[in-house]
Amino acid sequence: MTNKDARTPASAQDEKSQEAGKSIGWHKAYVEGSRPDMRVPVRQVHLTNGQAVTLYDTSGPYTDPLVDTDVRRGLPPLRENWIIARGDTEEYAGRPVRPEDDGIKHTSPRGGLRNLDAVFPGRPRQPRRGRDGQAVTQLAYARRGEITPEMEYVAVRENVSPEVVREEIAAGRAVLPANVNHPEIEPMIIGKRFLVKVNANIGNSAVTSSIEEEVEKMTWATRWGADTVMDLSTGRNIHTTREWVLRNSPVPIGTVPLYQALEKVDGKAEELTWEIYKDTVIEQAEQGVDYMTVHAGVRLPYVPLTANRKTGIVSRGGSIMAAWCLAHHKESFLYENFEELCEILAAYDVTYSLGDGLRPGSIADANDEAQFAELRTLGELNQIAKRFHVQTMIEGPGHVPMHKIKENIDLQQEICDEAPFYTLGPLTTDIAPAYDHITSGIGAAMIAWWGTAMLCYVTPKEHLGLPNKDDVKTGVITYKIAAHAADLAKGHPGAQEWDDALSDARFEFRWEDQFNLALDPDTAREFHDETLPAEPAKTAHFCSMCGPKFCSMKISQDIRREHGGSRDEIEDGMAQKSKEFAASGNRVYLPIAD
Amino acid sequence: MTNKDARTPASAQDEKSQEAGKSIGWHKAYVEGSRPDMRVPVRQVHLTNGQAVTLYDTSGPYTDPLVDTDVRRGLPPLRENWIIARGDTEEYAGRPVRPEDDGIKHTSPRGGLRNLDAVFPGRPRQPRRGRDGQAVTQLAYARRGEITPEMEYVAVRENVSPEVVREEIAAGRAVLPANVNHPEIEPMIIGKRFLVKVNANIGNSAVTSSIEEEVEKMTWATRWGADTVMDLSTGRNIHTTREWVLRNSPVPIGTVPLYQALEKVDGKAEELTWEIYKDTVIEQAEQGVDYMTVHAGVRLPYVPLTANRKTGIVSRGGSIMAAWCLAHHKESFLYENFEELCEILAAYDVTYSLGDGLRPGSIADANDEAQFAELRTLGELNQIAKRFHVQTMIEGPGHVPMHKIKENIDLQQEICDEAPFYTLGPLTTDIAPAYDHITSGIGAAMIAWWGTAMLCYVTPKEHLGLPNKDDVKTGVITYKIAAHAADLAKGHPGAQEWDDALSDARFEFRWEDQFNLALDPDTAREFHDETLPAEPAKTAHFCSMCGPKFCSMKISQDIRREHGGSRDEIEDGMAQKSKEFAASGNRVYLPIAD
Repeated sequence: MTNKDARTPASAQDEKSQEAGKSIGWHKAYVEGSRPDMRVPVRQVHLTNGQAVTLYDTSGPYTDPLVDTDVRRGLPPLRENWIIARGDTEEYAGRPVRPEDDGIKHTSPRGGLRNLDAVFPGRPRQPRRGRDGQAVTQLAYARRGEITPEMEYVAVRENVSPEVVREEIAAGRAVLPANVNHPEIEPMIIGKRFLVKVNANIGNSAVTSSIEEEVEKMTWATRWGADTVMDLSTGRNIHTTREWVLRNSPVPIGTVPLYQALEKVDGKAEELTWEIYKDTVIEQAEQGVDYMTVHAGVRLPYVPLTANRKTGIVSRGGSIMAAWCLAHHKESFLYENFEELCEILAAYDVTYSLGDGLRPGSIADANDEAQFAELRTLGELNQIAKRFHVQTMIEGPGHVPMHKIKENIDLQQEICDEAPFYTLGPLTTDIAPAYDHITSGIGAAMIAWWGTAMLCYVTPKEHLGLPNKDDVKTGVITYKIAAHAADLAKGHPGAQEWDDALSDARFEFRWEDQFNLALDPDTAREFHDETLPAEPAKTAHFCSMCGPKFCSMKISQDIRREHGGSRDEIEDGMAQKSKEFAASGNRVYLPIAD
Repeated sequence: MTNKDARTPASAQDEKSQEAGKSIGWHKAYVEGSRPDMRVPVRQVHLTNGQAVTLYDTSGPYTDPLVDTDVRRGLPPLRENWIIARGDTEEYAGRPVRPEDDGIKHTSPRGGLRNLDAVFPGRPRQPRRGRDGQAVTQLAYARRGEITPEMEYVAVRENVSPEVVREEIAAGRAVLPANVNHPEIEPMIIGKRFLVKVNANIGNSAVTSSIEEEVEKMTWATRWGADTVMDLSTGRNIHTTREWVLRNSPVPIGTVPLYQALEKVDGKAEELTWEIYKDTVIEQAEQGVDYMTVHAGVRLPYVPLTANRKTGIVSRGGSIMAAWCLAHHKESFLYENFEELCEILAAYDVTYSLGDGLRPGSIADANDEAQFAELRTLGELNQIAKRFHVQTMIEGPGHVPMHKIKENIDLQQEICDEAPFYTLGPLTTDIAPAYDHITSGIGAAMIAWWGTAMLCYVTPKEHLGLPNKDDVKTGVITYKIAAHAADLAKGHPGAQEWDDALSDARFEFRWEDQFNLALDPDTAREFHDETLPAEPAKTAHFCSMCGPKFCSMKISQDIRREHGGSRDEIEDGMAQKSKEFAASGNRVYLPIAD
């Protein structure tokens, strides 16, 4: 979304430039809301023609040179006063943090708590929850007709009226994930009437990666445009990693509580219990997790439906729950205790992301009986969640060939009463490991065009290993492309202005503007300079692709210059001539029979 | 396309392994046709479970350890005897090669001809053409009901009957580009009933790149899967570069003769004449160019239609012809002399690629009046070409948002009597320079699913610079993904077997098989080893993404092992139990009103 009229002081730009080195050409700005404490961040790109383009910004205070950030202190609690002012929450002692929360066994030789800051060094904070278990969710407020500061904030971000935001949330067609214990976030909204969003997964595994790396991946992902981040850590120090990520994240954080619960029973699925799971959900809700993937749709009777699949169950959570169901030959404890779970989430405004534990893991398994049986259950659970005023989105596949993608979104929208769809890809072929950001970017763009509200990114390392910083960037950029292509196809107001600004810069050979307007200015500049590094080339009316003699845009401009200065003049003059030509028959050959 | 039954001697595999180092796990094999001189190359992947998968192969003799290739000698003239045996062509002296052919001005201090092998060192060869100007095209043969060796060759390659190939060519729904002066090619076919093909552009510009580089890019592009290559050279030594590329290319070569013609008039569009253009077409036809982009659809009356565009005319050829039309205020000399051009192409079996000189260069200009006016003219020219038995395909955009893509292919198929559509992307957004292989890969997959026969790749350097070897590989791999995703969506027979083979390997943790079946085995292996380099990891039942405890596929397998060995056993046992559960009501919650 762009706003050509926006302006910004050059001084601020210079500061930013010096501070962020490569970021010359744009700076962080804020749009004021209806109150002084509501300043919505935007990315202002300064064009060499004096205009400015304003873009949606997810990078948080880290890109504001006037804000001094410190990961050990965490981000300022932007929403704290808004939450307190509502008067419907209370602080309480909260659940004590135990070594097991970090996956440390009592038998463990060296406790993880001892070898790093288990307790986040930032300001001490007691957890907060709804008074006497009342629902303190944006959904509850929206249904009551209240427009919260969070709703106004996203309205400014999306260039829509606050009432539209309230309506979409009230109808369950959009979610605004904002745990009362995560006041640091800059509110954002997920729904098909708004800009398509992108989630980036981070998280260490038992095999590799550290807390510092994960926090860095989170800030790096948001810098490139991730709208939310899921911490899928499964190894040691899982509680502590999450605390650091939450306190430093300007975007909503999602998790899969089942992973930590499994750690607490030493990875033995059959030893999982509702009590351990519930304790884990409360633990994470108190930390401030904004949305949680819950695989309550993986039911005992559906497991046999996966038996003849080519790749069985590929969702971690799905396979864990299937293993539990079979081990006990009982219905899923998540499905059986879903209403109690709703009460817990409602008290913190944790949003459901109902997981598709039976999503297909290969082209062969797409749109099969197992997948759609679970989807119907998710539709049922969505209605229950809504009864408890819990915001809910629905997760989707996975691996799906192009001709089967639309059926997924259409069915989900019908079965789940238009609840926001949140899909992983889908990957449109299985033959390109190391390029699954592309096999899935294709499917992601299509399913987003058709109504998916948020896309979970896939990195080049999918199926092969844990993504590093470069993979995270590649995954985010690829998915920002898919999301924006969908915004264009959906005719989202303002979406095309960004493309138009870049195309104008391209036609007018404003190279610096092309770089600064690009999703990834650094790489665009680097690629250009590989073949034409000299500064003059930045103003040259050609690039190394065609060379000066063959630049079609240069020739187009020459045409316009030589045949009338303005576009209108040339058109008038030429239109006249061409009319004469048309009058003369307008064709050289007679129609061909046969 | 795969053939699980195929087998291959281990010895041959070892040879290959030693020869090509990284290529362990697959080797070049041949499928015999109906005659000893017809050996159709395939890529045989050897799986660790003893099976083999046979894939389409475009890499030419370069990947055959038993063939000793030498770029200074060129490739063996595979088709020579087939062409001679038809007895409808004759050798002749041919047009003398002049310094101007290499862009050397008489005034030039050092003639390009002197500072490199202008005359290709390989075997001397006289050009060949149809006797007394008769059409020696595959279209003419197909219409006469003849199944040529070339047709049988592609039938074997595509796993279809030769009659299907003949029918599609005769109907003009497919082309088999094969200049009688390019006997080195391994015949391939372009049509919507066959596998979607990918073209890779190479070519130096006045600014950079050398002959050796271009030949290397061509062999590199075909190694990764390019089905045809276009030499878009525009600088010095253009004739000589083309000669080297042609003599060493196992795939059809396309060009845009207008580029060389413009060099001959020192880049002054207005000085172009039909005679200079015609002389250039004959020059290139004698060298063996298999298909030529001709911008005959850019007509005088259409130029004004581009005047109010955001990015004007972005096709080099289109802008050159527009400049010529305006300078003389005359109808295009290509349009006016199209019938004579048909006679020339028919005598060599050069295939038309009717260029879309007015394709949109930005999202804002997509599907506009200028683009579709030209398309209607291309439909008219297609019918004329068919009268002369010239094989013809139609070029398409460009920059098109997703919701406007289908209109392009549908209109083209209707207006051009289902002639093969050959599109550049289309790019689905303008905001990601440096990632336009992805912005366009999305559009390419969609338009191919809907019927486009060949996709012209876009590399990460598009809009920024001349692609290097890495960019060529990235562009080809991205487009092979788009093409295969489309083959899957079209339900092309055999297409899914490749995905299934890889998915089976994935589910069974056959890592080496996953790598060898991947579009890019080297990168897949490298990414895996980044986090788990040790050899044992190649047999491990997990990767670093989730670690051993969380591998969903491992859990799925455990489930199957523990609950009955075979998939059927587990299903029987579980189905029984789940029936009982279903009988008991199968749900925990009552339907929700509201």
